Amino acid sequence: MSDSASAPVPRRPGGDPPDSPGSVGMTCARTLQLATGQNPFALEMGGSVGPIHVEYETYGELSPGRDNVILITHALSGDAHVAGWDADAKKTGRLWRLKHPGWWDDIVGPGKAIDTSRYFVLCANFLGSCYGTTGPMSDNPATGRPYGLSFPVVTVGDWVQLQARLLDALGIDRVHTVVGGSLGGQQALEWALAFPHRVERAIVLAASPRLSAQGLAFNAVGRQAIMKDPHFHDGDYYAIAQPNHGLAVARMMAHITYLSEEGMHEKFGRRRRRQQRSGFGVEFEVESYLDHQGRSFVERFDANSYLYITRAMDYYDAAAKWGQGDLVQACRRIRSQVMVVSFSSDWLYTPAQCREFALALCRAHKPVTYVNVPSRFGHDAFLVENQTVGHLLHHFLKTPPPGSS
Amino acid sequence: MSDSASAPVPRRPGGDPPDSPGSVGMTCARTLQLATGQNPFALEMGGSVGPIHVEYETYGELSPGRDNVILITHALSGDAHVAGWDADAKKTGRLWRLKHPGWWDDIVGPGKAIDTSRYFVLCANFLGSCYGTTGPMSDNPATGRPYGLSFPVVTVGDWVQLQARLLDALGIDRVHTVVGGSLGGQQALEWALAFPHRVERAIVLAASPRLSAQGLAFNAVGRQAIMKDPHFHDGDYYAIAQPNHGLAVARMMAHITYLSEEGMHEKFGRRRRRQQRSGFGVEFEVESYLDHQGRSFVERFDANSYLYITRAMDYYDAAAKWGQGDLVQACRRIRSQVMVVSFSSDWLYTPAQCREFALALCRAHKPVTYVNVPSRFGHDAFLVENQTVGHLLHHFLKTPPPGSS
Repeated sequence: MSDSASAPVPRRPGGDPPDSPGSVGMTCARTLQLATGQNPFALEMGGSVGPIHVEYETYGELSPGRDNVILITHALSGDAHVAGWDADAKKTGRLWRLKHPGWWDDIVGPGKAIDTSRYFVLCANFLGSCYGTTGPMSDNPATGRPYGLSFPVVTVGDWVQLQARLLDALGIDRVHTVVGGSLGGQQALEWALAFPHRVERAIVLAASPRLSAQGLAFNAVGRQAIMKDPHFHDGDYYAIAQPNHGLAVARMMAHITYLSEEGMHEKFGRRRRRQQRSGFGVEFEVESYLDHQGRSFVERFDANSYLYITRAMDYYDAAAKWGQGDLVQACRRIRSQVMVVSFSSDWLYTPAQCREFALALCRAHKPVTYVNVPSRFGHDAFLVENQTVGHLLHHFLKTPPPGSS
Repeated sequence: MSDSASAPVPRRPGGDPPDSPGSVGMTCARTLQLATGQNPFALEMGGSVGPIHVEYETYGELSPGRDNVILITHALSGDAHVAGWDADAKKTGRLWRLKHPGWWDDIVGPGKAIDTSRYFVLCANFLGSCYGTTGPMSDNPATGRPYGLSFPVVTVGDWVQLQARLLDALGIDRVHTVVGGSLGGQQALEWALAFPHRVERAIVLAASPRLSAQGLAFNAVGRQAIMKDPHFHDGDYYAIAQPNHGLAVARMMAHITYLSEEGMHEKFGRRRRRQQRSGFGVEFEVESYLDHQGRSFVERFDANSYLYITRAMDYYDAAAKWGQGDLVQACRRIRSQVMVVSFSSDWLYTPAQCREFALALCRAHKPVTYVNVPSRFGHDAFLVENQTVGHLLHHFLKTPPPGSS
């Protein structure tokens, strides 16, 4: 990894050290087997997977009434390690976690917006992930070798069904709140649609009920970059070299979509790292930033997982699945309080798309809180605008459950 | 090439057959040597090139007073073949030209907005191009082998200087109008700045005085896709396989930036080519479109040229070059009538950037016509909104030259 002079930005500020009163401290992931070879897990698009092991983390204590559960659903490159410091980072070789706490450490912890001294917080790696839950890197029991592309297509719906199975296994019937951003926000929505009676509150950050044509296009090009990498070998690359070049290009491109034009202008402009011209190497600050993002990503992510997860993102369409194409009809299923938060400069899941979703909830006569947060951080804002997001979460978590008055 | 069911769109409508009264007919490119090995052409960033051969096309007749010259400057993937049908397409192996007339055939021809029965129209391939003018594909006289990356860095300024040398060779002192879109628009601006007394009118379509940080970012990722292709071989690939995968990925990504989100939504939405899921192959219409664009581009473009041209695009900064960073100061040099045309949904060279340029001209007390054309076609609009663009050109060409009272 290049120790780039231009630190990767925007990023959440710091996070608490493990011994701080605001940190959940050192964390240990747990793993639960939720399907077996004999009793595999049936998938939305057909086929099944078994065995399935799910890696998850929890923070805080489950209340005696089991009514204080906050389920967090993670995004494309996220994982179950939401807060605190991974005690097993060295053992599992996830060395990047030595440098940073969990991805939402500013939001989740004792006394924070998602207060772990009050709530039992849970996050599970989704199916197809490369962070412990069964995925294309896992051994296919039929061959004894990694699945690669023989892993079946998974969907946002599958992730939610498997999370429900995890809750069942933990003896949790209802969740106080399900909350996620981006692809995590689509899972939060899917929870409210698939299990209306198990979700009291759903918080959808920087996500809409389906990806735009432009979003589909970016995902398609990212996958092409991976699949055209000669090291890809039809996904059967685990024993040899990884398609890191393709994965880095996909990630660099994706990062452009996570920032806004104005945010990039402000942060990098046309500034150069060095004045002399370098031909086609890294010269502008923005090139250095993207180069760093590409390099660091390939150290921590699996190219096949990237394919499966972006395809799940492509396929998700709440209106098609639950309302025969009509989003209002789909929303009629919902029994949760819903908060939708968009960010003004997000052009991946735009404010217009989020507003359309909020309006569909209104038209379905469902309670909805919609906030468009002014921000220059683009799609990344849901991980950066922590003060505003924390404030919104803190207050929304106090909303009485539907039908309580 | 896949005969994609989803025709590549948006595209200009048709163009005239060679025997139509609106067509310039069959065209033959000419080539002129403008620098020799003994007298090489000095470059803005240092170094020199020689010999240089420039391929260009002309339409119409030069008036006895040599006062009817319209110089067209082409964009990234464009060429000197602006209008009509290439008589030499088979001979030169440019077979794609058998299917389409020149890239601005709807605008340039007898009786059209740029009326070749009235004007002498000229367009030259720029230095570094892969369409006949000397570039990285050409033989380096020092080695007898293609330049590859030993070709020096070229700039928008170099292109304009070389075009001036071409005009000198043709005995043309002043141009009635210089006009171009996108990277061609930046050349039109550079003409007005570098040769204020040789340009009566400059028309800048879908271009601004410099690329944004986001634009730099997209170019950087496109180049990375090419340079990380294992067939790239540091640019020395001509005798062997080409880095077509990387070039295709770069082009696919670039095409996303040429369309607008709304245009993509309207044209493709989330429609599928086939209902059954295809894993990671082409499934959505928008994937088919991008796939087609990638495939067809590698048949007609050179990866090294892509690197050089995008870098020239990165480097161009009119304010830095001509105004010590102050765009108004730079604009004070201009002696031409200037028209700036932006397109409402263009997010590569945004209306805001174009407006800023127009305002700088105003502040420099220079005559300027600024139009923001409402369009859903994004950056591509300058090649698609032919009726509006034609109308604007037709009228602006009649503007009296500066100082004519």
